[in-house]
Amino acid sequence: MRFLFLGDIVGRPGRRAVKELLPPLRAEYDPHLIIANGENAAGGNGITRKTADELFLSGIDMLTMGNHVWDQKEVYDFIDREDRIIRPANYPPDTPGRGYAIRCIDDNTKIGIINLSGRIFMQPLDCPFRLLDHLLPLIKKETKVIIVDFHAEATSEKLALAWYVDGRASAVLGTHTHIQTSDERILPKGTGYITDVGMTGPRDSVLGVQVESVISKFLSLRPVRFEVARGPVQLNAIFLEIDQERGTTEVIKRINIIKN
Amino acid sequence: MRFLFLGDIVGRPGRRAVKELLPPLRAEYDPHLIIANGENAAGGNGITRKTADELFLSGIDMLTMGNHVWDQKEVYDFIDREDRIIRPANYPPDTPGRGYAIRCIDDNTKIGIINLSGRIFMQPLDCPFRLLDHLLPLIKKETKVIIVDFHAEATSEKLALAWYVDGRASAVLGTHTHIQTSDERILPKGTGYITDVGMTGPRDSVLGVQVESVISKFLSLRPVRFEVARGPVQLNAIFLEIDQERGTTEVIKRINIIKN
Amino acid sequence: MRFLFLGDIVGRPGRRAVKELLPPLRAEYDPHLIIANGENAAGGNGITRKTADELFLSGIDMLTMGNHVWDQKEVYDFIDREDRIIRPANYPPDTPGRGYAIRCIDDNTKIGIINLSGRIFMQPLDCPFRLLDHLLPLIKKETKVIIVDFHAEATSEKLALAWYVDGRASAVLGTHTHIQTSDERILPKGTGYITDVGMTGPRDSVLGVQVESVISKFLSLRPVRFEVARGPVQLNAIFLEIDQERGTTEVIKRINIIKN
Amino acid sequence: MRFLFLGDIVGRPGRRAVKELLPPLRAEYDPHLIIANGENAAGGNGITRKTADELFLSGIDMLTMGNHVWDQKEVYDFIDREDRIIRPANYPPDTPGRGYAIRCIDDNTKIGIINLSGRIFMQPLDCPFRLLDHLLPLIKKETKVIIVDFHAEATSEKLALAWYVDGRASAVLGTHTHIQTSDERILPKGTGYITDVGMTGPRDSVLGVQVESVISKFLSLRPVRFEVARGPVQLNAIFLEIDQERGTTEVIKRINIIKN
Ligand SMILES: [Fe+2]
Ligand SMILES: [Fe+2]
Ligand SMILES: [Fe+2]
Ligand SMILES: [Fe+2]
Ligand SMILES: [Fe+2]
Ligand SMILES: [Fe+2]
Ligand SMILES: [Fe+2]
Ligand SMILES: [Fe+2]
Repeated sequence: MRFLFLGDIVGRPGRRAVKELLPPLRAEYDPHLIIANGENAAGGNGITRKTADELFLSGIDMLTMGNHVWDQKEVYDFIDREDRIIRPANYPPDTPGRGYAIRCIDDNTKIGIINLSGRIFMQPLDCPFRLLDHLLPLIKKETKVIIVDFHAEATSEKLALAWYVDGRASAVLGTHTHIQTSDERILPKGTGYITDVGMTGPRDSVLGVQVESVISKFLSLRPVRFEVARGPVQLNAIFLEIDQERGTTEVIKRINIIKN
Repeated sequence: MRFLFLGDIVGRPGRRAVKELLPPLRAEYDPHLIIANGENAAGGNGITRKTADELFLSGIDMLTMGNHVWDQKEVYDFIDREDRIIRPANYPPDTPGRGYAIRCIDDNTKIGIINLSGRIFMQPLDCPFRLLDHLLPLIKKETKVIIVDFHAEATSEKLALAWYVDGRASAVLGTHTHIQTSDERILPKGTGYITDVGMTGPRDSVLGVQVESVISKFLSLRPVRFEVARGPVQLNAIFLEIDQERGTTEVIKRINIIKN
Repeated sequence: MRFLFLGDIVGRPGRRAVKELLPPLRAEYDPHLIIANGENAAGGNGITRKTADELFLSGIDMLTMGNHVWDQKEVYDFIDREDRIIRPANYPPDTPGRGYAIRCIDDNTKIGIINLSGRIFMQPLDCPFRLLDHLLPLIKKETKVIIVDFHAEATSEKLALAWYVDGRASAVLGTHTHIQTSDERILPKGTGYITDVGMTGPRDSVLGVQVESVISKFLSLRPVRFEVARGPVQLNAIFLEIDQERGTTEVIKRINIIKN
Repeated sequence: MRFLFLGDIVGRPGRRAVKELLPPLRAEYDPHLIIANGENAAGGNGITRKTADELFLSGIDMLTMGNHVWDQKEVYDFIDREDRIIRPANYPPDTPGRGYAIRCIDDNTKIGIINLSGRIFMQPLDCPFRLLDHLLPLIKKETKVIIVDFHAEATSEKLALAWYVDGRASAVLGTHTHIQTSDERILPKGTGYITDVGMTGPRDSVLGVQVESVISKFLSLRPVRFEVARGPVQLNAIFLEIDQERGTTEVIKRINIIKN
């Protein structure tokens, strides 16, 4: 089975990048499912009904989230009913929305997708390692194909989690740093891995944000209003080919497309 | 002018990778100077006289450091006299060692190398942005070729600093996360940039450390003794070609070599 | 000379506490100057022209600030011209406002007041220790009476800074945690010290904020809107008697008044 | 029922303070049980068989711990069998030792003691709020007298947790900052509370550590070896009187004794 996974989509430029750059990718890779991290889809922070729908219309099948999931208050209006959006599963038990989903491609084909947040330099959510020990067998009852979006800051936590579930999850794809890493690989027992898929949004920016404002923040150490940057866009993604029977990644390929 | 810059060298496997993999690289790229980050050279933490000399013998011309610079107490015995080692320049004024160096290749050819530490999720050293405003003109009196090793955790701080000195430094090369990124580029005014050069050391590891011990730390949240991992090694590096007259990067190329 | 220093004033209840509880205190202690930390004066975050004036009218002579100083955007309109408000001196050089002030009580009587921010678990401002080495001799040219508001989180940083300037500053008074400590003392060389002066605002609260909302934040780990609490108020303060000739603290006394 | 609870005992001076200052306190307050935080008992970090026994011999009945619990490796040799020592209950499930204890004073008198760690600026242990929802009913089956040592850094987390269990636990006593606060009170539904009980150890110190070494660390931002300070000692404690039938605190009193 073939998958595309797009790194954090940032604001209007990110959504434009999806609209314009996804169709040719789709034609090239013919994926069974297209997943994207959407935590920055609405103006750089969080997601709205409108931005989510725009991304679904552009061909995204499934949106994962991260620490910015609650930034747009209206997310509470639809996250409980919208089964194409998942937020980190390691939020406390009563959190709105869901932390994983099982998607049916056809009668015999199901795919599990899990969203998790790291804890190093981040919020003290529940332990993502222990939560995977709980979730993986649960989902395995339905499918061996399981893709994890691990939304985390520290490279050590991302790598450790991937090694921890090597052979148990099909792929662990890191998000959150907005910078694509070049360490994509298949771990010894078959788990596809990359530390960070990267960012889909304005290229001449600091993680999608207008450069001058971020520099001003580092220089002044005072609150600065961040605006999404303009200019050329990039689409960062991962292509995965997963063996449906064994649940192992057979091909992992990094994608980085730039458009003026 | 041509340069090789190697990402954090971790322990004995990292030093072995340098010894075995650097000669062919040298033959291929014929660099004027080879720089490497050596903060993890001695058993994964810090540097010793012996490990530094081993790296110099293997062909490294210059070692930069990072947050681990003081981990081996004996560093205090030689850091003041050893002008081939620099530590982050933004430590307080009376710190042993130096934060930048000017190396002479021949009578007309000088190269400035600056080591800086980030502050996000790290120690509150002096502001690296303001320090560069001070250091760059100082070094520019002697040479336009200036390479900055920015040893930092947060991708935002690394990118912001690079944009901040675009056109003023020849290159800003990130280190510290031990994971190579795929975002190498030349910024509009000529500064070569990559968020992280990566790691030179044991490949099947978490940032150079034996996998099980790191997993055990994340699961237990208790102190765990870390050992450098064994097995296949990798050498992560950047090749730079810099215009000597203008001080701009003309070519930046990512290198990742694996050896069993 | 006699001083009153009030801990962080939080919102309307804090301002009310000042208005109603300060007059009797003033009558009792007859202070030459009344200083207060005002970083939470406006609705719990930052300060406005109106809230500052209200506090000055209530008898406060001087306001110090902290990490919340920039929360109300209008502070930029007056902080440069208002010499009765100081913000942490260790913000970068070009920061609006000033970090210390010298107040004249009469022709022969001057008082230096310095505001500093800690760095542990806070923003990486300039080193407060080194900055004091610079500021103290500067102010000493005019007066030996120097009071430092050290706005910091970590008890270790507060105590260390006080010991560092023992005999050089008249007093180091901690703020920011909103909880009064019971460790007020005079250090061996004469510097009056307390780790935290406490909070002036609603007593049945979490640091001034309505209890349920803070609990909800800790339970949910999601963004929660904080409102200043209602109900009984408290005024937390320190009374200092400082020897004008020698600049040493002779009396330090903790004050905690509660009013329904 | 009457209780004494001693703040973090630091090193040899702290153990000496207990030996010399506890007997008169015991005579004065005649407590049914004496609890102390022992996480710094052995040379400032962790606990050993010998230092624990010394404290038990001096009259301590029960030791709670904190983030330093694992600093002395030999703790693993006895923590599983030693039921007079508890460590934070919110470590992961398989952690050695126990997180709470039920002590019998006589046939009809039991006391529950719970040790918890905060998470703000600390390790991401399990949620202490949710854990209390689980532990309190469990212990209530045996006794209504329940004392919680909440070992935490942030004042907000400590206060919020106390309000959260007001009327459900007999007392929430904060530890970890090593500075006694002056905010002891009984919350509306009967829970006794103080943000921090303080420190039992060398008075002229930074949290028990020799002053110059801590200043040197703040100035240099490099690793510095910490030694426990010498000189006069202090004993910081809380006296509690709890209604056995209702489980509410009737009296809470702060104790601070200094001895040259
Ligand atoms: Fe993001
Ligand atoms: Fe994120
Ligand atoms: Fe490193
Ligand atoms: Fe590092
Ligand atoms: Fe405050
Ligand atoms: Fe503050
Ligand atoms: Fe402690
Ligand atoms: Fe502690």
